[in-house]
Amino acid sequence: MAGSIIARIRAWTFEQLDPRARHRPGLSAANRVLSVLILVATAMAILETEPTIELPNARLLTVLEAGLGVVFLIEYVARIWSAAEAPAHGLKWKGRLNFALKLPALIDLLTVIASFAPGVHGALVFRLFRLLRILRLAKLGRLSQAWSHMIGAVGARREELILSLMIGIGLMVGSATLLYLVEGAVQPDKFGSIPRALWWAVATLTTIGYGDVYPVTALGKVFASITALASIGLVAMPTGILAAAFSEAVQHHKATRTD
Amino acid sequence: MAGSIIARIRAWTFEQLDPRARHRPGLSAANRVLSVLILVATAMAILETEPTIELPNARLLTVLEAGLGVVFLIEYVARIWSAAEAPAHGLKWKGRLNFALKLPALIDLLTVIASFAPGVHGALVFRLFRLLRILRLAKLGRLSQAWSHMIGAVGARREELILSLMIGIGLMVGSATLLYLVEGAVQPDKFGSIPRALWWAVATLTTIGYGDVYPVTALGKVFASITALASIGLVAMPTGILAAAFSEAVQHHKATRTD
Amino acid sequence: MAGSIIARIRAWTFEQLDPRARHRPGLSAANRVLSVLILVATAMAILETEPTIELPNARLLTVLEAGLGVVFLIEYVARIWSAAEAPAHGLKWKGRLNFALKLPALIDLLTVIASFAPGVHGALVFRLFRLLRILRLAKLGRLSQAWSHMIGAVGARREELILSLMIGIGLMVGSATLLYLVEGAVQPDKFGSIPRALWWAVATLTTIGYGDVYPVTALGKVFASITALASIGLVAMPTGILAAAFSEAVQHHKATRTD
Amino acid sequence: MAGSIIARIRAWTFEQLDPRARHRPGLSAANRVLSVLILVATAMAILETEPTIELPNARLLTVLEAGLGVVFLIEYVARIWSAAEAPAHGLKWKGRLNFALKLPALIDLLTVIASFAPGVHGALVFRLFRLLRILRLAKLGRLSQAWSHMIGAVGARREELILSLMIGIGLMVGSATLLYLVEGAVQPDKFGSIPRALWWAVATLTTIGYGDVYPVTALGKVFASITALASIGLVAMPTGILAAAFSEAVQHHKATRTD
Repeated sequence: MAGSIIARIRAWTFEQLDPRARHRPGLSAANRVLSVLILVATAMAILETEPTIELPNARLLTVLEAGLGVVFLIEYVARIWSAAEAPAHGLKWKGRLNFALKLPALIDLLTVIASFAPGVHGALVFRLFRLLRILRLAKLGRLSQAWSHMIGAVGARREELILSLMIGIGLMVGSATLLYLVEGAVQPDKFGSIPRALWWAVATLTTIGYGDVYPVTALGKVFASITALASIGLVAMPTGILAAAFSEAVQHHKATRTD
Repeated sequence: MAGSIIARIRAWTFEQLDPRARHRPGLSAANRVLSVLILVATAMAILETEPTIELPNARLLTVLEAGLGVVFLIEYVARIWSAAEAPAHGLKWKGRLNFALKLPALIDLLTVIASFAPGVHGALVFRLFRLLRILRLAKLGRLSQAWSHMIGAVGARREELILSLMIGIGLMVGSATLLYLVEGAVQPDKFGSIPRALWWAVATLTTIGYGDVYPVTALGKVFASITALASIGLVAMPTGILAAAFSEAVQHHKATRTD
Repeated sequence: MAGSIIARIRAWTFEQLDPRARHRPGLSAANRVLSVLILVATAMAILETEPTIELPNARLLTVLEAGLGVVFLIEYVARIWSAAEAPAHGLKWKGRLNFALKLPALIDLLTVIASFAPGVHGALVFRLFRLLRILRLAKLGRLSQAWSHMIGAVGARREELILSLMIGIGLMVGSATLLYLVEGAVQPDKFGSIPRALWWAVATLTTIGYGDVYPVTALGKVFASITALASIGLVAMPTGILAAAFSEAVQHHKATRTD
Repeated sequence: MAGSIIARIRAWTFEQLDPRARHRPGLSAANRVLSVLILVATAMAILETEPTIELPNARLLTVLEAGLGVVFLIEYVARIWSAAEAPAHGLKWKGRLNFALKLPALIDLLTVIASFAPGVHGALVFRLFRLLRILRLAKLGRLSQAWSHMIGAVGARREELILSLMIGIGLMVGSATLLYLVEGAVQPDKFGSIPRALWWAVATLTTIGYGDVYPVTALGKVFASITALASIGLVAMPTGILAAAFSEAVQHHKATRTD
């Protein structure tokens, strides 16, 4: 009888925590609260690193952070415990172990441990370790039902996207080599080797253009202009591939819904 | 009898002001005039803030602005009065109240009031309040029949677009944390905290690249290059989602028209 | 009999010059030669303005330019003369006049006249007038059969694209107003008025980011970051609309070809 | 009998080296090994140009590079030898010659020869020649099965893409001419001729925006702002065309698979 109550609590916990168990749009109540806490905790972890922000009450902050750590610890334990509900993971302890050894759960565990590392007054290594709490942000994505659709659409065009990236890297190496040959003698600190010229090529082909490095010779500007025109294609190609992928995913979704 | 004439004037006013009441493409005569007046009034509000522009006749300008304010006041009253024609708002005064309490009408009211706040010679708070007149620009969008189609297409992919934004923010926080660790010691004023490094991450991942902040160490440049490559994906993802959304909207529009 | 020969020459001339008369892909022989001459003439007009380029033989150049001018004059006359072949323009002289009074033919005429204006040694006004020769580049587009398809695809989404532009301008005015309020006091020369702040807003929302203007206060950077995120949407929206338009044009083309 | 064994080895070699002979996704074992070796060799060629990187053991490096050169020489010979298997190339020596005289094989040969040119201590011309080894990167693309699909999708929209490029070049020349007229007198070193202004136009219309050149007059900023808005269209047009092309390719692929 008690076992049946526990089973019902476990089922409810699973429904509250796992987005796959939810059949309505949006987030469950528990996940909505957790999302807000993740955002608050991440904002705190970010602002903590800024020396000009006066900590109003360092003691209060420490208590707050410890409290958030405890909440996320409870969440972690609850997820592992209720993971037995998911048929895909296998039953009971084997299912829980399967779930716990997957990357998302391992990241969860890491961020939980990081919450309890010594803070502001600890050694450098601990402060760096505490920064891992920022990885909690990745949990937000997993809560969304759109996440798996997007992963699916991107994954279906995996090969084309990797090829686009490789074409991009090839363009970068090629234009960096050209500019190294043309500008290397004039600006040795900026174009004196291919790795140095690559910094310019990355900033140019991604259209960021910081402006710390740019060619000054006429021939260098001609080659850089051709590279600049190629940058339009480099941005257009993955965008076009993703647009086609999302179009296809939408139509596939519709077709399966109609059948 | 008089009531019937008024009803006809009201119906005509509604047809002239509300784009939903119009069944032909383009804008009605009244909305065309109002669009031009909104553009003129906004340009005046913008140029007024520039000290090097000599006001040729400040008195004339004040009269002109007051005149525009009166026109927009009349428009506001006419919209509220004729709102009773839209069945969606409910009949008579209840319908008008429904319309008047919605965000677009409230913004209208605010810009009308701002038109009559004391101008150039008024206190700072009034001058700031008068800047709200610039919100009139938002009225232009609502006049277009394409507006609701676009809102519909974007709204249908709301979840994916929000997720893209969150992935983008996650990438920004992640790359800012990395650069803070790598460049923080070398450029403390620019990368000495995660909030400072975030300014660099925003400029890089949106491919703006002001060039006021950029990494100088070899490792920082390697991480920045990876961030730069990720920026292509960050731009490509919402573009692909919107392209699919607009494609779908066009096909849906066609399918419903054919049936 | 002579008339019949002339009619045949006129028909052949029309086929050679007007891309609509061509039923095979690619350019006709005459248009291929003209394309090369347009590119050469434009390159000459561009390079002529650069003072550091030593003119090897100014006399030869003048003769060359005059020769190109004569070729384009003959082309202009031939186009007008053979325009009578296009049924859309109406028959004989009325058809030719219709053709000659349209924008493309008027631009042609202007560039032909500009070719014969006094050159390097002429007065400033003539040298500026001669720059109109660069407009010849616009003729290249019209020669392509893809031109009308693209114009058609873009034209079909005209209203959405104009609305995107207006949303963009609205975003620019809005973010410029915010930055003017926040940064105006700190950087009066750069953000001291809305028109000044607009220069920053244009560079930011189009993701160009020259880096001559950027916010320095914390609040300014927060607003600028939000503007930067909005820039992704501003680029994504017209791209998505055009992607849908081109997809639709391709499918329409296929459907009409199959029927 | 021996001939039959050789034929089988040749068939196996062809299957291992030519992606068209492979009917499963991914790369063959030989091509996977070669991909890694190409990446290693390219990284070595890039890093070799950086003077601050201490060569730990120059002798070992030379041996390693020679070893890689021998591997790629063997690969080249094996590709030519097994090319007779591809029916498209024709049988026996004629088929091999056909294959060897095509651009990819000629590039292969060039990179193989470059591997054996004298290295660090050789004359400048040899060191430049050795840089041709970087072209090996182009081989990576050809190994992917997605390559031909992408080439096909891009090729089908060739005319529209070239037209986009020409519209872009036209916009660049046009805006450079305007800025030359407006800013030429104020910033003669940056806008004093159309070729100089073109450097600004390229950086602006591709949204790179290095920030080394930008207008300073009010009129120049107005024209630059219009150019900046046009840059959105310039990026959106090829992206939209490619998105439509990839969508079409996916649907075509599906349709042919279903039939």
